[in-house]
Amino acid sequence: MVHIFDRLLGKMDEKKTPLMIGLDPNLSKFPETILKESKFSIWQGMEAAAEVIKSFNFNIIDATHDLVPIYKPQSAYYEQYGSEGIRALEDTVKYAKEKGAMVCLDGKRNDIGPTSEAYAEAKLGKVLLPDGTYTRSSLDFDLLTVNGYLGTDGIKPFVEVCNRDGKGIFVLTKTSNPSAGELQDRVVEMKDKVYIEMAKLVKDWGSDGIGERGFSNIGAVVGATYPEEAEEIRRLFPQIFFLLPGYGAQGGKAQTLVNAFNEEGYGGVVNSSRGIIYAFSNNKFREKYPELAKPEKFAEAARQATSDSIIEINIALKEAGKLPKNWVN
Amino acid sequence: MVHIFDRLLGKMDEKKTPLMIGLDPNLSKFPETILKESKFSIWQGMEAAAEVIKSFNFNIIDATHDLVPIYKPQSAYYEQYGSEGIRALEDTVKYAKEKGAMVCLDGKRNDIGPTSEAYAEAKLGKVLLPDGTYTRSSLDFDLLTVNGYLGTDGIKPFVEVCNRDGKGIFVLTKTSNPSAGELQDRVVEMKDKVYIEMAKLVKDWGSDGIGERGFSNIGAVVGATYPEEAEEIRRLFPQIFFLLPGYGAQGGKAQTLVNAFNEEGYGGVVNSSRGIIYAFSNNKFREKYPELAKPEKFAEAARQATSDSIIEINIALKEAGKLPKNWVN
Repeated sequence: MVHIFDRLLGKMDEKKTPLMIGLDPNLSKFPETILKESKFSIWQGMEAAAEVIKSFNFNIIDATHDLVPIYKPQSAYYEQYGSEGIRALEDTVKYAKEKGAMVCLDGKRNDIGPTSEAYAEAKLGKVLLPDGTYTRSSLDFDLLTVNGYLGTDGIKPFVEVCNRDGKGIFVLTKTSNPSAGELQDRVVEMKDKVYIEMAKLVKDWGSDGIGERGFSNIGAVVGATYPEEAEEIRRLFPQIFFLLPGYGAQGGKAQTLVNAFNEEGYGGVVNSSRGIIYAFSNNKFREKYPELAKPEKFAEAARQATSDSIIEINIALKEAGKLPKNWVN
Repeated sequence: MVHIFDRLLGKMDEKKTPLMIGLDPNLSKFPETILKESKFSIWQGMEAAAEVIKSFNFNIIDATHDLVPIYKPQSAYYEQYGSEGIRALEDTVKYAKEKGAMVCLDGKRNDIGPTSEAYAEAKLGKVLLPDGTYTRSSLDFDLLTVNGYLGTDGIKPFVEVCNRDGKGIFVLTKTSNPSAGELQDRVVEMKDKVYIEMAKLVKDWGSDGIGERGFSNIGAVVGATYPEEAEEIRRLFPQIFFLLPGYGAQGGKAQTLVNAFNEEGYGGVVNSSRGIIYAFSNNKFREKYPELAKPEKFAEAARQATSDSIIEINIALKEAGKLPKNWVN
């Protein structure tokens, strides 16, 4: 069984980018052309919403899957449409995997032990059927984001499923949002900050799952919007792989993002959601590519934004002397 | 619009108990009689699992809805079965509400602002359809558990939906599990512990949503397994309403649980999941009620365990001089 981050690093080397595309289907931002499809559909209400989400996602995946190693659906947007929304998520995961991509669910799940076990199996493992047999979950993700506020016994069940099934998790450490510091930057016992304490726990939780390329299967979410903190965590915990949200729409810059990578140019996956999937309606993007500023061109626009992001990040890596050796043409 | 905790307190006064039943459908603990139903069903796989979960829950609700004010489904157990599991959850919420009960989803959701907005609408609010209209979520819960590790901007969208739609949330403050203290008990800046800092945030988040009975619509999860901490938070933050997990199966005792209530005997809702819904297979319960120690009696057993818990808690409240005045017959 290949270690999760060896697998992801292999895919990154193949595509020559650490970029991940976030699939956050927000109907209020959808191109009209996709919304209109539902007018001629037999579905109504929640089912109609699920159908347009599926259509939107499949178009984005078709337009970008040769460029990126991994997608990150954000669970909240699917959960809005109840069981129908989850069906759209199931179909999206299946489709992305068929196209050879990896998939990380952004679910930020957390609970006490026995319930964490249920979450771990629900998203990464296998579930019990009434006849006593087990089957792979219908949402068989490669990776999952997890919140560690509850401590070790809430995380151990995830770690066990990761070690057993070759999966991985990212534990929220320093998140990308403006209020992240309210709790995470508080100094505990006059020594370290809460996010450093969280990183210490992440290191311990991952100690039994180190892959060939030196990373543990228990990663950390570290906001691309906090480059100094990212650099600090990278320096203190070289074995922790990062999920870096906040690049693009949230204001994280490629130039500082590279702080999160080690000297070889590895150590994280960079997520961009809105900046890519809704590029067709983004003002800066529209100025640069007026011909793609049309609802019916949303998938082409997403592809262009993906290429531009890949180039921007790789230039920043190169300028920092960190572009991975085998990404040089 | 009636304030969420005025509504819950009204229901508690009607049933004379702060007890909440957790609906955690774990197939490995189900009575064989329920599992066997699926043998004769046309459903298979995930659909069969969803059907037995629905049947189990409906039986438990039938047997207990006249006794308790509120149920708490644990999201993880439904998520295990993907879209089919969520359909069983949708049916369960609808059924519990038809029977006059309130419903709190234990989902421990959390994210950055825009995504928290999606979660808040998904579980407590209304969602956008492709035709531009809004509809109530298919999972229209009264209450939701939320994790505050990300700070204010991750919580504000929940607060807004609560204030707008008369709903409420419980923010994880001091959780019930053994490792809760790893982060939550750390002392920040040589002053207070992390869970006290979290409670301060909860107080601020709820300041615009105080009901007639003095509680804010932003509550806190405080483990019944940590009675001293519960007493401390109750004393420091009289306006925060508690969700108290950990009573029963996790070891929380009625005698110390009452610390979490104010002098009038109010201030929290007490959850019991496994101790009630799987009472038929619990050793202590079986000794006391051998006639109910049969899979086919699981719903009757749940009713008996509910009655016993209500009496045990009310005796403890009485002994502490805290039994609410209008609960005295």
